[in-house]
Amino acid sequence: MNIYELRTPALLVHSAALEHNLAIMHNARPRTTLRPHVKAHKCTALARRQVAHGHTAFTCATPREVIGMATAGLGRDLLLANEVLDRTLLGDMAAVQHLATVHIAVDSVDTIDAAADAGLRYVLIDVNIGLPRCGCAPADAGVLADHARSRGLFVSGVMGYEGHLMMVSDRDEQKVRVDRAVDKLLAAHLLVGGEVISGGGTGTYDLHDQLTEVQAGSYALMDTHYAQLGLPFQQACTVLGTVISTCAGHSVVDVGLKALGMDHGNPQVRSVDGESGDVWFVSDEHTTFSNLAVRTNHRVHVLPAHIDPTMALHDVAWVVDGDEVVDQWRIDLRGW
Amino acid sequence: MNIYELRTPALLVHSAALEHNLAIMHNARPRTTLRPHVKAHKCTALARRQVAHGHTAFTCATPREVIGMATAGLGRDLLLANEVLDRTLLGDMAAVQHLATVHIAVDSVDTIDAAADAGLRYVLIDVNIGLPRCGCAPADAGVLADHARSRGLFVSGVMGYEGHLMMVSDRDEQKVRVDRAVDKLLAAHLLVGGEVISGGGTGTYDLHDQLTEVQAGSYALMDTHYAQLGLPFQQACTVLGTVISTCAGHSVVDVGLKALGMDHGNPQVRSVDGESGDVWFVSDEHTTFSNLAVRTNHRVHVLPAHIDPTMALHDVAWVVDGDEVVDQWRIDLRGW
Repeated sequence: MNIYELRTPALLVHSAALEHNLAIMHNARPRTTLRPHVKAHKCTALARRQVAHGHTAFTCATPREVIGMATAGLGRDLLLANEVLDRTLLGDMAAVQHLATVHIAVDSVDTIDAAADAGLRYVLIDVNIGLPRCGCAPADAGVLADHARSRGLFVSGVMGYEGHLMMVSDRDEQKVRVDRAVDKLLAAHLLVGGEVISGGGTGTYDLHDQLTEVQAGSYALMDTHYAQLGLPFQQACTVLGTVISTCAGHSVVDVGLKALGMDHGNPQVRSVDGESGDVWFVSDEHTTFSNLAVRTNHRVHVLPAHIDPTMALHDVAWVVDGDEVVDQWRIDLRGW
Repeated sequence: MNIYELRTPALLVHSAALEHNLAIMHNARPRTTLRPHVKAHKCTALARRQVAHGHTAFTCATPREVIGMATAGLGRDLLLANEVLDRTLLGDMAAVQHLATVHIAVDSVDTIDAAADAGLRYVLIDVNIGLPRCGCAPADAGVLADHARSRGLFVSGVMGYEGHLMMVSDRDEQKVRVDRAVDKLLAAHLLVGGEVISGGGTGTYDLHDQLTEVQAGSYALMDTHYAQLGLPFQQACTVLGTVISTCAGHSVVDVGLKALGMDHGNPQVRSVDGESGDVWFVSDEHTTFSNLAVRTNHRVHVLPAHIDPTMALHDVAWVVDGDEVVDQWRIDLRGW
């Protein structure tokens, strides 16, 4: 089968670019020095490629990702880098601990008690290192670790995420600011102990020498937002569309809001020959663009601005080698 | 069951607000003078409520919506207000014509030929009346209608969508501009003939006296974007979340980019008592907010800025009457 036989919109994973990205990353951060983030693809088949490249520990954002990865036999060590209070979901994760080590992030007495009550065994103390989201104040990390240990939990270390620094375009400035954020994590680690100091992402994957592991995820498939940074990773995911309408001034492709994560703004449009068009706007089922020589029934690639929520909108990814469809992967870790 | 027993994030449909909205709209545009747009909810159970209020014709944006509605026995007349060239999908729609009249929008010789070849029987000529998306130039509508008739298709009339005018806040100015757009559709209709003049949306539902039917969809569930217009419709959909982390300056609820359509910007956050917080930003699985007195494990409502793509991210909607969960509806028309 080739891409011209696919119903559109169709999520494509370009295998050569994916393998390039996985190889580059594994060269920079081999084996457990990277804990690939599953939220960026939500796909056990893709995680299997990351395992093939040598990674054995994974980061997850939802209980369903943890349970799906464990059940698929992927990852010996799964970290839910997120706070959960729901007893049922915590219990469901505890029930897969015979398949993998399950770590969960905690940042409060409530999250620690919920994890302990559910029978989970391993936690990381989640520390706020500058991004105002989850995470305790660095100075509180030691007290929380003590409480976790008093509840019988094994505290493996700390995690923090400098998400506010992913898109700093000046690399020298970024390095200075990342180091300052990591200093907070190291201060917390002195209070907590344990072997794990976890953090980082695709935008800072090569700036860390103090972390024991980096949680990058977007590097595998990339998006136009991260592409602005000039990282050595290639766009490995596009949404294939069909041109359904053209007129003198503009054309319309059948890829819209329901096929694209839109929080980082409009996607890019590219012909199958690699020429770029100008995107005007995106509607539920359409992207309007100009300056690309296309006719009705032509295929065009739409490049998502944000990969993670794009994956959450598709049932399947078609793996392609050039124009040839070589595999079909289920996006099987969607939902919660 | 009540909302405190639901796993979060959970899409809620507030039944009293929904029924209010359906009643208001049916009073303004009864029976077939409204052709409710299914793309705004993608849910046959909700469409069944629209049928109960007296509507028997529906608008769809995807073949799956058409086929799902026909198969569910909903709508005697289904309009795909979108251009399709895929022969398989067109054939699948032709195959449900014994269940409902299926109309399809066409705006080119290619789309007409594809519809005729697939065995579809009814078309509307789609006319560009100002929004640069699908639709032929008004002056070309007659020639296309002739071509469609020469291919054996029944041309029921015209459609156009003044989507660029939905959010004009001055109602007098909006009315003038809408009339000017509709004039283009009427000019096309003179060339085309047929009984149907279809257009409009939630933002202009009460401004049309020349259209035979209005294609509004968002009015049923609403969103914070349309709420800016001061329409008589209430917010009938929220995404329920759990507060998973709090600190001195902000709190975090477990509703993020993967649970919200984000193209219209950030959602709003509201306590179960109706107090509003200040949203800072949204991440994959989180919304960070402040100025709302909450603790971990509290529930809060997150109000989507755009309802249509929000629905596309959820498997089910929980129908609630206050805090009580009274039904569960599958969002069964997702995908393509």
